[in-house]
Amino acid sequence: MPDTILLELKTLLDAALAGDSKSRELLATRLNEYLEAGDNESLRDFFSYVHPADASQILESYSPEQACSFIRVLDADRQVQIFNYIPARFEARMAGIMSRQELASIIGAMSHDERADLYNRLTPEQQNDILPALAQVEREDIFKLASYPEGTAGAVMTSDYCTLEPHLTAAGALEKLRREAPDRETIYNSYVIDHQRKLLGAVSLRQLVMATPNSLVKDIMISDPIYGRATDSDEDVAEVMAKYDLIAMPIINGDDKLVGIVTFDDVQDIIEEEATEDFHRMGSISGLGEKLTETSFRKAGYWLLVQKRLPWLLGLVFVNLLSGAGIAYFEDTIKAVVALVFFLPLLIASGGNAGAQSATLMVRALATGDVKTKDWLSLLGREAGIALFLGAGMAFAVSLIGVFRSEPEVALVVAMTMLAVVIFGSLVGCLLPFMLTRFNMDPATASAPLITSIADVGGIIIYFSIATWLLGTSGAL
Amino acid sequence: MPDTILLELKTLLDAALAGDSKSRELLATRLNEYLEAGDNESLRDFFSYVHPADASQILESYSPEQACSFIRVLDADRQVQIFNYIPARFEARMAGIMSRQELASIIGAMSHDERADLYNRLTPEQQNDILPALAQVEREDIFKLASYPEGTAGAVMTSDYCTLEPHLTAAGALEKLRREAPDRETIYNSYVIDHQRKLLGAVSLRQLVMATPNSLVKDIMISDPIYGRATDSDEDVAEVMAKYDLIAMPIINGDDKLVGIVTFDDVQDIIEEEATEDFHRMGSISGLGEKLTETSFRKAGYWLLVQKRLPWLLGLVFVNLLSGAGIAYFEDTIKAVVALVFFLPLLIASGGNAGAQSATLMVRALATGDVKTKDWLSLLGREAGIALFLGAGMAFAVSLIGVFRSEPEVALVVAMTMLAVVIFGSLVGCLLPFMLTRFNMDPATASAPLITSIADVGGIIIYFSIATWLLGTSGAL
Repeated sequence: MPDTILLELKTLLDAALAGDSKSRELLATRLNEYLEAGDNESLRDFFSYVHPADASQILESYSPEQACSFIRVLDADRQVQIFNYIPARFEARMAGIMSRQELASIIGAMSHDERADLYNRLTPEQQNDILPALAQVEREDIFKLASYPEGTAGAVMTSDYCTLEPHLTAAGALEKLRREAPDRETIYNSYVIDHQRKLLGAVSLRQLVMATPNSLVKDIMISDPIYGRATDSDEDVAEVMAKYDLIAMPIINGDDKLVGIVTFDDVQDIIEEEATEDFHRMGSISGLGEKLTETSFRKAGYWLLVQKRLPWLLGLVFVNLLSGAGIAYFEDTIKAVVALVFFLPLLIASGGNAGAQSATLMVRALATGDVKTKDWLSLLGREAGIALFLGAGMAFAVSLIGVFRSEPEVALVVAMTMLAVVIFGSLVGCLLPFMLTRFNMDPATASAPLITSIADVGGIIIYFSIATWLLGTSGAL
Repeated sequence: MPDTILLELKTLLDAALAGDSKSRELLATRLNEYLEAGDNESLRDFFSYVHPADASQILESYSPEQACSFIRVLDADRQVQIFNYIPARFEARMAGIMSRQELASIIGAMSHDERADLYNRLTPEQQNDILPALAQVEREDIFKLASYPEGTAGAVMTSDYCTLEPHLTAAGALEKLRREAPDRETIYNSYVIDHQRKLLGAVSLRQLVMATPNSLVKDIMISDPIYGRATDSDEDVAEVMAKYDLIAMPIINGDDKLVGIVTFDDVQDIIEEEATEDFHRMGSISGLGEKLTETSFRKAGYWLLVQKRLPWLLGLVFVNLLSGAGIAYFEDTIKAVVALVFFLPLLIASGGNAGAQSATLMVRALATGDVKTKDWLSLLGREAGIALFLGAGMAFAVSLIGVFRSEPEVALVVAMTMLAVVIFGSLVGCLLPFMLTRFNMDPATASAPLITSIADVGGIIIYFSIATWLLGTSGAL
C-alpha cells in the first residue's frame, strides 16, 4: 500500500478515535473495500502500521463480525498483539464467531493475564470447546489464573514472567532472558526461586546489565523483595507498587510459592478503576465502576443504568420522608410564620453542602491512604474548628440578607440556624465515612446525596426548634 | 547493629507508617538515643535496612530539624535516595536548616525532576545561595526543568535519560548504558537523537538485549515513537502513556528537540492527583487537590481548608436564595395547603439526587476520555429515556405513600411533580458538564451541590405550579 494512502487511513483512524463518527464509518467503508476486493495485503499493511492499541480501539467500535473479518486476514503475531488490548467482554463476543482453531491459536499466544480474563468471559460451552485445542501447560495456566476472584491480586497478575536460579551467573541470566524475552510480558524484573518455587529474591535487568558477567545472581539480587499475596486486594497491591515506584511486583500464594507478577500498567488501570468506583458511589450510583471496566459508560445499556441508580433514589426517599415528618411536627410554627418557609431550602442546602464537602475530603483521604481510621477523633476535632469558621461566615452572609427584609426576628433565627446546620452537616459528613469503614462498608457509600438528606432532616429540626423557641417566646407574632 | 534490634526497629517503623502514633514516638526516641550517644553506625544500619520510601515517610512525620539531624549522619548515596522520595514542600523546610554545602551535595545528586521541584519551592535567597555551589551543567538543567508551569508535561519530566547515536552497535549501546546507568532514572528506554537533539527513534533495553551485538541502533529502534510536548498538559501525557502501556515517553520542545522523559511512576501520581481533584471539585471544594500534592490532607491547615470551602458555600447561597424567591411567589398556594410543605424536602432532594447521579456519570466519563464533548446529544437522549424510567419508579413509590394519607389530590400533585423533577434534575445534571466543557471550564465544577441547588429551584417552581394548577382549579380547597 502506498505511503500516501496509509497516511490518509491513519488520519481517518485518529479522527475516529477522537470521537468523529463520520471518519469511523468512512474508515470502515475503506477497509471493507479491501476485504471485498481480496486485497488482504493492504489490510495487513494498515494494521501493521498503526499501534495495536489504536487498532483494538477501532475494532471494538465495529460489530464483532466486522472486527473478526479484519482480524482474520492478519498475521498471527499481529492478531495476538491487537487481541491483548481488546477488552475481554468484546473478545468473548468475537470468540462466538471465530472457529475453535482460530480462537485456540490466538489464546495460546496471548499474554497470560489477558487470556485468563477472556476465558472467564466465555460461556461454559465455549470453554469446553476451546480447552482440547490448547496445550496441557496452557490449560493449567488458564485454570490457575482464572481461579482468583475479581478484585484480588491473583485476578490481575500474569504468569509470563522470568525466573532465575540463584547460582546462575549474570551473563548466564542475560542469555536466559534473551531466549525467553519474546514470550514474557516483562524481562525488566526477574525472580529468583528455589526448587519449590519459594521466592528467594528479585533482580532487575538494570542490575544484570551493570553487574560483572561472572557474578552470581544470588549476590546481585535483592534478597527481601517487596511482594504481595494472590488473595490481597488489587487496590492494596496497586498502592504498594505506586509508593515504591515498582515496575513489577511478585505475587505468592498461601504456600509462599511464586505464582505471578503484577505489572505497572495493571496498577494504572486499578488506580483509575478504583477512583471511578469511588466517584460513582459518592454520587449515589452503586457498583457501576466494576461493570464499566468491561464496557464503557458511553455504551452502557438503559437497563444497567436504571438498575444502578433507582435503588439509591428510592432508598433516599425514606430519609427524605423524615424531613416531611419533621415539618409536620412543626406545622403550627409554619402556619404562624409562613416567611420561615422562604429560607428553608437555603438552610437545609447549606448544611448539606458543608456536609458533602467534609465527606468528600474524608472519603478521598481514606481511599488514598492519606488518612487512617484511627485518626478519626483528631480529624473530627479539626473539622469542628473549620465548621465553626464556615458556619460563622455563612451566618454573617445571610444576616446581611436579613437587613433588606422587614422581620429582624426571622433574620436572627435564620443566622443562628445557619451556624448550627453548617456545623451539624460538617460533623455528620466527617463522621459517617469513618463509621462506614468501621462496619466494613466502603466509606464512599457516605455519598453526597445521603449526607445531604441526613443534613436536611437535622436542619429542619434545628431550624423550626430555634424558630419556635425564639419567635414563640419573643411575642413577635 | 544486631539483627534482632534492626527487626525490632523495623516493626516500630511499620506500625508507625500504618498510623500508630505511639510507635512513631517510640521510634523517634530510640533513634535519638543513638544520635545522642554518637552511635552513627547504628543509624546508618537502620536507614540502609529500610526502604528509602519508608524512611522518607517517617522522616516527614517528624520536625524538619529532627529529620535533618538523622539525614546528616547517612552516606551521601542514602541521603539522596531518601531525598528523592520526600515531598518538595518538606524538603524546602529541611533546606532552610541545612548548610549550603550539605544542600548542594544532595541537590547535585538528586533525580533531575525531583530537584527541579525542590528548587521551585526554595525562597529566592535560598536559590541564590545554592546556585554557586552547583556545577554549571546542573544549574542549567535546573533552570530548564523549573521553567515549565505546573500541570504541564515539562514540569513532571526528568532530564536524566539515556540518549544513543543511530550508528552505534547494540553492543556499544549496552556498554554506554552500563556506564551511565548509575546516573539515570531509567535505562529501560533510550532515545536516539541527531546532532541537533531531534528525536529519531526510541529503543528499549529489551530490544538491545535481544538484538545481535553487531546490529545498529538505527535498525533496531522504533522510528516513530509516541512522544509528547513539554507544553502538553500532564493529564494528556498520562492518558496516552496509560493507553499504550509505556514505561517512559520522550518529551520534545517547540523546536522538536528532545528535552526530557516522563516515566510510569509519574503517570500513577498524575492519575491519582487528577482523580482527587475531580473528586473534590464534585464535592464543591476548589483546587485543594493541587495543594495537597505537596502536603497531605491529614496535615492541611485550618485556614487552607476554610479558604477552599467557604467560597463555594457562599456562592451556592445565591442559587438557594432563588429557591426562597420561588417559594415567596407561591405564598398563597402554600398558605392554602400547608400540607404541601411536608413533601417539599422529598421532592427537591429527589430531583437533586437524580441530577447528582447523571452529573457524576458524565463528569467521570469526560475525565477518563470515555465520552467526548460531541457525544452530548446522543447521551442527552439516552438520559431522557433513563430519567423517564427513574421518574416513573419514584412517582409510583411516592403514590404508595399517598394511599396512607387523606388528601388524594396532594398525592396526585406529589406523584406528578416527582416524575417531572427527576426528569428535570437528570437532564440538568447531564447537560451542565458538557456546557462547562464548552466554555473551557472543568466539567467537575458541575458539582453535586451545584446541581442539587439548581434542581431545588426548578423543583420548587414545578411543584407549586402543578399544585396551583391542579388544586386551584379542582376546587378542593
